[in-house]
Amino acid sequence: MSTKQAGGGKGVTPQSEDFSAWYNELVVKAELADRGPVKGTMIIRPYGYRIWELLVAELDARIKATGHDNAYFPLFIPEADLRREADHVEGFAPELAVVTQAGGKELEEPLVVRPTSETIIGRSMAKWITSHRDLPLLLNQWANVVRWELRPRIFLRTTEFLWQEGHTAHADRDEALAEMRTALGFYEEVARDVAAMPVVPGEKTPGERFAGAEQTFSIEGMMRDGRALQAGTSHYLGTNFATAFDITYAASDGSLTLCHTTSWGMSTRMIGGVIMTHGDDKGLVLPPRLAPHQVVLVPIGRGEALDAVVAAARDLAADLSARGVRAHVDTRDASPGFKFNDWELKGAPVRLELGPRDLEAGTTVLARRVDGSKETVPLAGLADSMPALLEELQQRTLDRAREFRDANTASVEDWDSFVGQVAEGFASVLHCGRPDCEDDIKAVTAATPRCIPIGWPEETGTCIRCDAPSAYGQRLLFARAY
Amino acid sequence: MSTKQAGGGKGVTPQSEDFSAWYNELVVKAELADRGPVKGTMIIRPYGYRIWELLVAELDARIKATGHDNAYFPLFIPEADLRREADHVEGFAPELAVVTQAGGKELEEPLVVRPTSETIIGRSMAKWITSHRDLPLLLNQWANVVRWELRPRIFLRTTEFLWQEGHTAHADRDEALAEMRTALGFYEEVARDVAAMPVVPGEKTPGERFAGAEQTFSIEGMMRDGRALQAGTSHYLGTNFATAFDITYAASDGSLTLCHTTSWGMSTRMIGGVIMTHGDDKGLVLPPRLAPHQVVLVPIGRGEALDAVVAAARDLAADLSARGVRAHVDTRDASPGFKFNDWELKGAPVRLELGPRDLEAGTTVLARRVDGSKETVPLAGLADSMPALLEELQQRTLDRAREFRDANTASVEDWDSFVGQVAEGFASVLHCGRPDCEDDIKAVTAATPRCIPIGWPEETGTCIRCDAPSAYGQRLLFARAY
Repeated sequence: MSTKQAGGGKGVTPQSEDFSAWYNELVVKAELADRGPVKGTMIIRPYGYRIWELLVAELDARIKATGHDNAYFPLFIPEADLRREADHVEGFAPELAVVTQAGGKELEEPLVVRPTSETIIGRSMAKWITSHRDLPLLLNQWANVVRWELRPRIFLRTTEFLWQEGHTAHADRDEALAEMRTALGFYEEVARDVAAMPVVPGEKTPGERFAGAEQTFSIEGMMRDGRALQAGTSHYLGTNFATAFDITYAASDGSLTLCHTTSWGMSTRMIGGVIMTHGDDKGLVLPPRLAPHQVVLVPIGRGEALDAVVAAARDLAADLSARGVRAHVDTRDASPGFKFNDWELKGAPVRLELGPRDLEAGTTVLARRVDGSKETVPLAGLADSMPALLEELQQRTLDRAREFRDANTASVEDWDSFVGQVAEGFASVLHCGRPDCEDDIKAVTAATPRCIPIGWPEETGTCIRCDAPSAYGQRLLFARAY
Repeated sequence: MSTKQAGGGKGVTPQSEDFSAWYNELVVKAELADRGPVKGTMIIRPYGYRIWELLVAELDARIKATGHDNAYFPLFIPEADLRREADHVEGFAPELAVVTQAGGKELEEPLVVRPTSETIIGRSMAKWITSHRDLPLLLNQWANVVRWELRPRIFLRTTEFLWQEGHTAHADRDEALAEMRTALGFYEEVARDVAAMPVVPGEKTPGERFAGAEQTFSIEGMMRDGRALQAGTSHYLGTNFATAFDITYAASDGSLTLCHTTSWGMSTRMIGGVIMTHGDDKGLVLPPRLAPHQVVLVPIGRGEALDAVVAAARDLAADLSARGVRAHVDTRDASPGFKFNDWELKGAPVRLELGPRDLEAGTTVLARRVDGSKETVPLAGLADSMPALLEELQQRTLDRAREFRDANTASVEDWDSFVGQVAEGFASVLHCGRPDCEDDIKAVTAATPRCIPIGWPEETGTCIRCDAPSAYGQRLLFARAY
């Protein structure tokens, strides 16, 4: 990992002063990403891309372990294909990028740059599925997609982003619904156990569904400014795409039957989620499982003394690597103070400071990023104990995020409390379920229904806004969202 | 890996009858890929994509181990950026796909869908490099690229393909040349040790260089029809892109100096190379390191006897997996004969046939795809010996390809022999180096200079075609090429 182009040392605007400025400055100064030359595009720099690779490896392993096969479908979709599912094209039309010239000529039919791949994959499903023996068909692809964004934000809303999109076909509704929940389970697990994000899984209200879906589920994380981030979605598409693309199978009795399909995706948006769930005024705080460098060793000293320290640091880094720890020795020509700040900015979970006197005493100063603690520890046995310490810090990072979320989530029973709560965090409320009431709430408070959480207790009553009878048979979460 | 949509059983046109038909049928019947709805695009199916994933893992590990960092740059390049390097835009202009509409509006400036990323990465290099301490800058990205092809061919020439593209910046020419050779070394090694392709590394003649390069090196493989496939390229770009994008650094004496850059790529074309290097009239022959299923177990029998066989096959597959072998039990509802043909078509290196009598005798029939041999072997110890057998088959696959290549490569000294040789394979010749003589040879024989092989002995004389004095101080290879 190149760390030569140091962006650190100058700090970032405090979160409390301007959260948005904090985020934008941090993304650039921590060398996660840059803006691309075309508006709304991003350049994911090595440090940010490594976080993505670590996330991909974890999610891909779960997708494969459950019998899904990776494949790759074309970037370009014939415009006519996209029009075959009416709700779908209506939802995506305003965001499309269109190729009209290729090979030096005007194309007879414009090509849409995929915003998502239900249509082009539906076409292949129709071709590949004949009989019930071909089901379920469980596909996934890792790809870039393009959605033209009017208000782009690096990682959160970019005109091009990277993601995986699962696409599956099933014999009936129940199997497809179970698949949708399986995929949602991947996302909840990866968010919690890898990204240390204590997300809330639940169903979207009808107004927030994916274009063309019968049901949409999501995971919702809380950012440090109290806003929600939708960090992964899973859709039950019913027979909508099967009807549009003729995805049918011969049942065991020979009858031709429509498949039930699902789709589900998680994207580079997750990197934004990690930044805003854990970061603080000093910069990023990376959970160890997503940290490009879990342990950064900073050698301190001059001349020959420094040489000995660097050699010792390299030996220790090798010991750590042998134990599966991603260790990095920072030998840049810069002051220790600059390096300390830089690795705080970049969120390395553990920093080891090693000088000539430490070496003599057989100790090192160990700094933990997540809680800012610093202590002198013996070098002997340090490599052996590091994996357990990283696990502890992973858990601490999750716990801290959960405490923050819980402290900023409240059940509210009246409109004034609701307005106050959604200005700070998540509000758990009863709602009538009417789209125009949702719109009204959004117009007044900027809050939207995030999800109807899975597994919450049954409850009925009256709507927080309009006093009509509540829907869903339980509370749901409202919040301002990214 | 889903194997439910069996395309096999019907065989393919023999290579000797129509090599092109053999290839096209095999790609589809072995379920490697399908044609996409837009001309020239391909759908990489799970079986084909898994081969790609295995190749990616091997190449990516080598790229990372040598200090290169992965990153991701945008798909869309402003048209004006592409024009900043004159040779580059001239070379790529005929192949560009252009986005002219986005978000429901005509764009003010058209966007080119990247055909390669020297320009957009050059822009970032200029921003990130300030001092000699920022060098070398060693970047790589895994991405899709688009080049509009008039005569598309799945894997070999598709309008969209997947690849990695390395882009590096250096302080001087020597470092950049060394980097170019390092990357060429990845390709040679991955081709040889992973894909079992005995490629020839060498330099391209000036007429075959990458648009914008000072020097281009490639690896050239021989396909079973005697044609060459360029399977990876590495370019020294001199200061051409550094000049166009202002990629400069302050040298240690403070003087502002242009960087020397390189770029290098290997793509999904390699899958086509594997197919055509090893395949035969029965179908694919996969080298074990690229085989999605290295060992396929086919249980034989009926009723309860089959249940016992399937259980034994699953146990054996688990033992194989525990030893790092990719094993697959084929439990499809189809005849053993169908399955044998299907796995020959799909090129599984080892097939184990297991019936009730085998089980009783403690044996299994082991079929080796690369040489078609079949023998009865004891089940005891089979899992333990399988990794070594797979290594042996990997080597056998490489040896067989090398024997074929050597048998179809000849030094020729006169024009008639040349014409005969390039109709069958590679011709090693002296050539004058004049582009118009190359064009003449191509017009008459369809053969082109493939490369000036590295490490070949010095030799001078007269041109095979025009009798002018030879160039390069050594022989080079001519062949018809994909």
